[in-house]
Amino acid sequence: MRPPSYDDLLAARALLAPTPIWHTPVQTSRTLGEAAGVDDLRLKLELFQVTGSFKTRGAYTRIASLTPDERARGVITVSAGNHAQAVAYAAALAGTSSVVVTWKTASQLKLDAAQAYGAETLRLGDTPLEAFEAMFGVREERGLVLIHPFDDPLVLAGQGTLGLELVEDVPDVGTVVIPIGGGGLIGGAAIALRQLRPDVRIVGVEPEGAPTLTRALAHGGPVPLEQVATIADGLSAPFAGGLTYELVRDLVDDVVLVSDDEILQAMRLLALRAKVVAEPAAAAGLAALLAGRVAPAAGPVVVVISGGNVAAEVVARALTPA
Amino acid sequence: MRPPSYDDLLAARALLAPTPIWHTPVQTSRTLGEAAGVDDLRLKLELFQVTGSFKTRGAYTRIASLTPDERARGVITVSAGNHAQAVAYAAALAGTSSVVVTWKTASQLKLDAAQAYGAETLRLGDTPLEAFEAMFGVREERGLVLIHPFDDPLVLAGQGTLGLELVEDVPDVGTVVIPIGGGGLIGGAAIALRQLRPDVRIVGVEPEGAPTLTRALAHGGPVPLEQVATIADGLSAPFAGGLTYELVRDLVDDVVLVSDDEILQAMRLLALRAKVVAEPAAAAGLAALLAGRVAPAAGPVVVVISGGNVAAEVVARALTPA
Repeated sequence: MRPPSYDDLLAARALLAPTPIWHTPVQTSRTLGEAAGVDDLRLKLELFQVTGSFKTRGAYTRIASLTPDERARGVITVSAGNHAQAVAYAAALAGTSSVVVTWKTASQLKLDAAQAYGAETLRLGDTPLEAFEAMFGVREERGLVLIHPFDDPLVLAGQGTLGLELVEDVPDVGTVVIPIGGGGLIGGAAIALRQLRPDVRIVGVEPEGAPTLTRALAHGGPVPLEQVATIADGLSAPFAGGLTYELVRDLVDDVVLVSDDEILQAMRLLALRAKVVAEPAAAAGLAALLAGRVAPAAGPVVVVISGGNVAAEVVARALTPA
Repeated sequence: MRPPSYDDLLAARALLAPTPIWHTPVQTSRTLGEAAGVDDLRLKLELFQVTGSFKTRGAYTRIASLTPDERARGVITVSAGNHAQAVAYAAALAGTSSVVVTWKTASQLKLDAAQAYGAETLRLGDTPLEAFEAMFGVREERGLVLIHPFDDPLVLAGQGTLGLELVEDVPDVGTVVIPIGGGGLIGGAAIALRQLRPDVRIVGVEPEGAPTLTRALAHGGPVPLEQVATIADGLSAPFAGGLTYELVRDLVDDVVLVSDDEILQAMRLLALRAKVVAEPAAAAGLAALLAGRVAPAAGPVVVVISGGNVAAEVVARALTPA
């Protein structure tokens, strides 16, 4: 497998253009800029994306590229989060069926959302690993196409369209800060950013409790994490992909870590100052900036607010001083 | 005093155009539309306005129209809320000074915000009424210009620019739902809406605990409320103005009431579904729609989300089931 090219990103963009999956807005935040000590801070408000996160871009790009035969059979994925909703929505939009596999303890809320978008949902096994293994059985049995959450050239091309939009809206962008789960968003976006603004500074942010890419970069390749513990469920991929590892290694300037408390504090500021409800994963970029872990280059700093799918209790917790 | 004309709104818009006070976005919300039983629901996201509410439009329009002599003296207002921040910001932008008068129990948070925008803040008296009376003394003594929160033709013209934008972004708008405090926003916006879309249905929404315009319409003129008790501090004006009363009577189709619980529920849905943090006042329109108190006309329904200045505890309360 090879990463997508810049032309693949342009093709993905053309594929997305006629759909409801939209070019999300970029907004300046003066007060958050002051709090972070940044002259010109912008937020890429991807939390307004259809299904509530960037995942819809990649899922649709992948599913709309199925062969007629594959489309007739349908798709499958394992996810308890935003990718599940994105696959369910994208499958319906592309005129095919979807199966979302999760495990015993996965949130019913997220399952309900995938179901509402038209997916068949299955709880198989007690853990993500057991669900993953069980998924292969269902896939074989029914001849379904697996939609990987990040390590797929078409999924990466779809996520990369966010980078195209970002440069269009902020042509003089100096620094881009992007949260990292499996690395699909930063990997895809970095292809666009490096092509259009070779000198832009790209910083990835991981939670301390799920340092997937930090470990992969240290070890010279993806390594599974023994344990994942973070409030940022959207960033809790237990491993990087081969493609995303290479993209981050080759195109990203720096990967930094943030704590759950820093994430909650960033969620609070996003709610009270920027008036948006970010999920914990989506607040990681601002958290890193506020903690002084991003050394911005000259020019506007754009923080990608990647999604807004979050339980009410978690937002309430972010807003309630400890 | 006469209400502003449509041309006055166009003049206000020209005045605002070169400033950071901006044309706020309109966004479709499929999930909130489904919840409200409305085919095409849009949110006018005025909570993204500079200083966090629509009030900046009117305050700047008024202050930028001062004579050189008035500008040399400065402005004054009485407010514990969004108007205070708007006047402080607009005065600084227009190159004049501002004094914001509040009372003993007014929130320090709001005072701090006005101060941060450059206002001198004074606590005078124990109640809003006492503060109002004391303000007249300061105004006389220093020769300041009073900036009324709503009953002023230039303030109304400024708020009316929101209506111009709304029709530009949703040319086929069928119904517009707007919260009512003193009536400045709905009064100004209705001038634009009636001019551009004579058949549009305009519905105003008040909290049960501050039925200013409901009472005024019943009595045939503004009557002071003996008591105001609502979570929507942004809608707690204790009286309508002469101008706003006439505008609502002549241009608005219906004024309906919502309870505090309905407002909190609407805030919750706006946070979890539309991913925005609305202040209680700003959630009143959606609350009325969800409660079935708005009978929409054919075409898109636009709900104006008028501001996002709200204490963390109030958002946390909206997100925490009783």
